[in-house]
Amino acid sequence: MTNLEAADHAGIFTSHAYQEQIADLGEVRMNYVTTGASDLPALLLLPAQTDSWWSYEEALPLLAGHFQVYAVDLRGQGRSTWTPGRYTLDNMGNDLVRFIDLIIGRPAIVSGNSSGGVLAAWLSAFATPGQVRGTVLEDAPVFASEVTPACGQSIRQGLGPMFALWSKWLGDQWTIGDWKGMQAALPKETPPWMMTALIAMSIKTPDAVPPSFDEPPQNMREYDPEWGRAFYAGTATVNSDHAHMLASARAPALFTHHYRAIDPGTGTVMGAVSDQQVDRARELVTHAGQPFQIMSFPGMAHSMHGQDPQLFTRTVTSWSQTIPQDR
Amino acid sequence: MTNLEAADHAGIFTSHAYQEQIADLGEVRMNYVTTGASDLPALLLLPAQTDSWWSYEEALPLLAGHFQVYAVDLRGQGRSTWTPGRYTLDNMGNDLVRFIDLIIGRPAIVSGNSSGGVLAAWLSAFATPGQVRGTVLEDAPVFASEVTPACGQSIRQGLGPMFALWSKWLGDQWTIGDWKGMQAALPKETPPWMMTALIAMSIKTPDAVPPSFDEPPQNMREYDPEWGRAFYAGTATVNSDHAHMLASARAPALFTHHYRAIDPGTGTVMGAVSDQQVDRARELVTHAGQPFQIMSFPGMAHSMHGQDPQLFTRTVTSWSQTIPQDR
Repeated sequence: MTNLEAADHAGIFTSHAYQEQIADLGEVRMNYVTTGASDLPALLLLPAQTDSWWSYEEALPLLAGHFQVYAVDLRGQGRSTWTPGRYTLDNMGNDLVRFIDLIIGRPAIVSGNSSGGVLAAWLSAFATPGQVRGTVLEDAPVFASEVTPACGQSIRQGLGPMFALWSKWLGDQWTIGDWKGMQAALPKETPPWMMTALIAMSIKTPDAVPPSFDEPPQNMREYDPEWGRAFYAGTATVNSDHAHMLASARAPALFTHHYRAIDPGTGTVMGAVSDQQVDRARELVTHAGQPFQIMSFPGMAHSMHGQDPQLFTRTVTSWSQTIPQDR
Repeated sequence: MTNLEAADHAGIFTSHAYQEQIADLGEVRMNYVTTGASDLPALLLLPAQTDSWWSYEEALPLLAGHFQVYAVDLRGQGRSTWTPGRYTLDNMGNDLVRFIDLIIGRPAIVSGNSSGGVLAAWLSAFATPGQVRGTVLEDAPVFASEVTPACGQSIRQGLGPMFALWSKWLGDQWTIGDWKGMQAALPKETPPWMMTALIAMSIKTPDAVPPSFDEPPQNMREYDPEWGRAFYAGTATVNSDHAHMLASARAPALFTHHYRAIDPGTGTVMGAVSDQQVDRARELVTHAGQPFQIMSFPGMAHSMHGQDPQLFTRTVTSWSQTIPQDR
């Protein structure tokens, strides 16, 4: 169980147009980029599980017209420290408490995609007072990424089997790395609807050459598969019940809900999260005294900021003008 | 799963000679007292599981001659917020990261008794850079408070059955509160050696009237028994392996090792931690490049700061003069 710093596996990374920087947070060295003028509102961007900060690379120049933007690699992803045995919402959330304190230094809007959106909700509930002005939950698996959720389908009844597949064939810190074995096992080790869901959730680039998956895509190379194991086994969430977290919200929220369907045979969620689960999140946050707006994009890929950076920018910017200036 | 603030159960508390204050850390309102001049080195005191800040009440005036002292109630104890479902080393440790940042505001020596000593080791490994000058582990159950320790006896093979007893008969947040039932069950539900160990670990006050346990003692009234459940079930420590934590130390440590014995029939630890476990901690911390001094007090109660505040003060003060001034 030895931590990995970026220098310990320098060969897996590629270069980017933005200048990457490292914030020493104590346990974790957190990699990030920043752009936008310092007199604009601060916006912290949290990628999805398996995504690095550069999933926002196309959105950054658009967002920089409206915000001073910070995009980070969470622990276990990209050039940030990989921390075996310590992937939990609480640890990831507290990394961000330190990042906001040490690097941003003022109240921020936090926008997260997928697991990053759950972390935005975590920060709304548990951050140091005054750190979070508002949260954007971009297709965030509230309840649906828990093992024993208070509402609706569990991680086993959604995308969890995919995490289990990654964990089994790639191994903690890529110590197995059997990409071809994983591809061969996918039809056998995940439910029949999984491919349908994954295709609907993927980013479409109609004019581009379709991606080849003969080799691991760059974002997966930068991802510690132990994340997936921690979520599927439940250790990542065992001490941060989503119902309690959402009921503790202290900032306004926008939820963008993307592609989802219910598999008629099994009741599993094809997509990140069900309508019922998002509605329940709204009830809990509203009961805590905070606004919770839902915008539905049923045809949208899991990552709106990747699929349609213009729409993502318009959506976040418009909503940000509805919340209090500062807190 | 609703948090309890001090005002939600105001009737359980008693008054003290020191002025109690509240620090709003976000999720938790942390109760603390402080004494000593601000030009003296900062010292943060962490009580044992089941103890509030005032377990240090007799030691505070002695320590205040040498340090600016802060003594806190950890979450789930005393006037600090009780947080059902969220008792973990990581959450308790991150509360203290915020406390050092917001209230102490400079590098501190952290001295913790029992579980508080484990938290001191946690801070040495995981706090924000520069927060911790050194750590005192006052009879801290390194390894011995884990469910699957890398070295020696687990919590089940030590004092854990006592935590299980508290949890069962008192209930999360005292929702059961059957003190007499617990007393009656103690001989049946804990191992035969437990009473011997507890008596050896207890504070002796030869001149005082022996305490009556007909009613819950004040420190237990101020303790959320869910702490005990979280440790015995392992959720408190599942994501913070002690071997990894100790191997990540970034500050010098002093370990004071008090009463302990091995039950010959079962190999269980009577006391907080075995010699082998303390030696292994020393190896790991030393390998991380930090000094780790062990002082053995085989006849000492679990709380030296309660049993012999003068000796505790001399011990901490002398050792503090051996570590670097600042970091």
